[in-house]
Amino acid sequence: MTTDNRGPAEGPGQPSDQGFTRLSVNQETVRQLSVPELVQACAVLGIQGVGLWRDPVREFGVARAARAVREAGLTVTSLCRGGFFTAVDPAERAAALASNHAAVDEAAGLGTSTLVLVSGGLPPGERDLTAARERVADAVAELVPYATDMGIRLAIEPLHPMFASDRCVVSTLAQALDLAERFPSERVGVVVDSYHVWWDDRTPQQIARAGADGRIAAFQLADWVTPLPEGALLGRGQLGDGCVDLRGLRELVDRAGYDGPIEVEVFNPALWERPGGEVVAETARRFRDFVL
Amino acid sequence: MTTDNRGPAEGPGQPSDQGFTRLSVNQETVRQLSVPELVQACAVLGIQGVGLWRDPVREFGVARAARAVREAGLTVTSLCRGGFFTAVDPAERAAALASNHAAVDEAAGLGTSTLVLVSGGLPPGERDLTAARERVADAVAELVPYATDMGIRLAIEPLHPMFASDRCVVSTLAQALDLAERFPSERVGVVVDSYHVWWDDRTPQQIARAGADGRIAAFQLADWVTPLPEGALLGRGQLGDGCVDLRGLRELVDRAGYDGPIEVEVFNPALWERPGGEVVAETARRFRDFVL
Repeated sequence: MTTDNRGPAEGPGQPSDQGFTRLSVNQETVRQLSVPELVQACAVLGIQGVGLWRDPVREFGVARAARAVREAGLTVTSLCRGGFFTAVDPAERAAALASNHAAVDEAAGLGTSTLVLVSGGLPPGERDLTAARERVADAVAELVPYATDMGIRLAIEPLHPMFASDRCVVSTLAQALDLAERFPSERVGVVVDSYHVWWDDRTPQQIARAGADGRIAAFQLADWVTPLPEGALLGRGQLGDGCVDLRGLRELVDRAGYDGPIEVEVFNPALWERPGGEVVAETARRFRDFVL
Repeated sequence: MTTDNRGPAEGPGQPSDQGFTRLSVNQETVRQLSVPELVQACAVLGIQGVGLWRDPVREFGVARAARAVREAGLTVTSLCRGGFFTAVDPAERAAALASNHAAVDEAAGLGTSTLVLVSGGLPPGERDLTAARERVADAVAELVPYATDMGIRLAIEPLHPMFASDRCVVSTLAQALDLAERFPSERVGVVVDSYHVWWDDRTPQQIARAGADGRIAAFQLADWVTPLPEGALLGRGQLGDGCVDLRGLRELVDRAGYDGPIEVEVFNPALWERPGGEVVAETARRFRDFVL
């Protein structure tokens, strides 16, 4: 077991002795939990971070969520998600940018410095992926100054190519880096998510490329399991249930110089049906057994 | 409309005047048709090729299928599929190679020179994609001499990355070419299938690479539609129903120097529920409207 990434030493049996100081649990892994329930379930295990999502945070209240996290002694490691930048229609495009300004405000309100961007898919009737990707770049360029003013770094997330048409035209880490590198690295980084990049033989070299330039803004984990469910979105596997070499990927990201939070983000209805605290504890065990 | 690829000129109104001389209909697009029904439905439209699959051909009889195609004046453009080479267990590996020898025999019996290979996924419990890809290369190396003796060219097909775990560890045209280029191009080529490569920004350069070396052994078409069905396998779209720039892709393949058959291979249960002749006619119209 790797222990390099522990925080300050504590006595045996103390929570952080488990090596969970870099672990962050994304809210959508246990959506059955409210923000206070989530941070409480994390805190008792020594987990120090949570990743949050815009919709549930807005429902709960941004300031209220920020306070709940802070009072439990945790931090918000990222906010998911802005983006959806591919509209051709000027009004839709303006609405997307306005929504992303709001997302920047929410991230700032939560005290995280990382806003994850999912680029959006091909608009209905469109077949030009190259043009759609260029519209994403244009929108990022428009968003960067405001995000920078607010202390927020944009984190471009490539999604698995199976989402290229309906969700994200940025399909590989290489593409995400091509896009991010148009901007200073402290303003625009990328997300490395095991679920989206595990299959790609260029991932090791692209992680090294991202690390060399300080571009890894977030590192997320989920396992790949089959069969995919209808719509593919909610088919992610709990760590260790699938075929991704999660430890190998973590080692690549370590070697690339990234020492920030490692967020577990599993969208899986079977996890949502179980007691949330039990799922958080299982996630921590799986993190220890398959990642550390 | 491009007419460069027509066969010998015939009078207006004749079937081949429609530009269907390069069109081939894959059997799995209209699995409700027997081989004689399929070739008849194609022949009346001036379609000159069919792509066949091992299981239904063996059920029908290889020699009988070959005769049915020949008597209708058509050719078999490819046989799908050999492969599934990723087993670690020596007995499973030997069984896979034996099955591939049989597939070569069946291809030869059908009079096609092209056997499509789908590499196979990760065996249960395996997480090492690189090793699995290397086992595929080893198996291809073992199969090449026999295939060459029998006059069969192996065609390595990359499948969409969403199939990397359970069906095919070769996920991109670049990977397929890396593998094929270990062998002479007349012995091992690649399949360009729109469904599998449309999302990849490297596809244009990889098609050019494949063409420069004479590696394009087959060109197949299906459209990408969402939502994906459970299991993802049977979610392909009829030409024109999805977001793939089929004409643009055909032009890239043309420019790469490929002038062989263009096979339409759509796995979609909704097509199988309709009268097969109607589906073949629709496929030809869609081919004219979205590809030529």
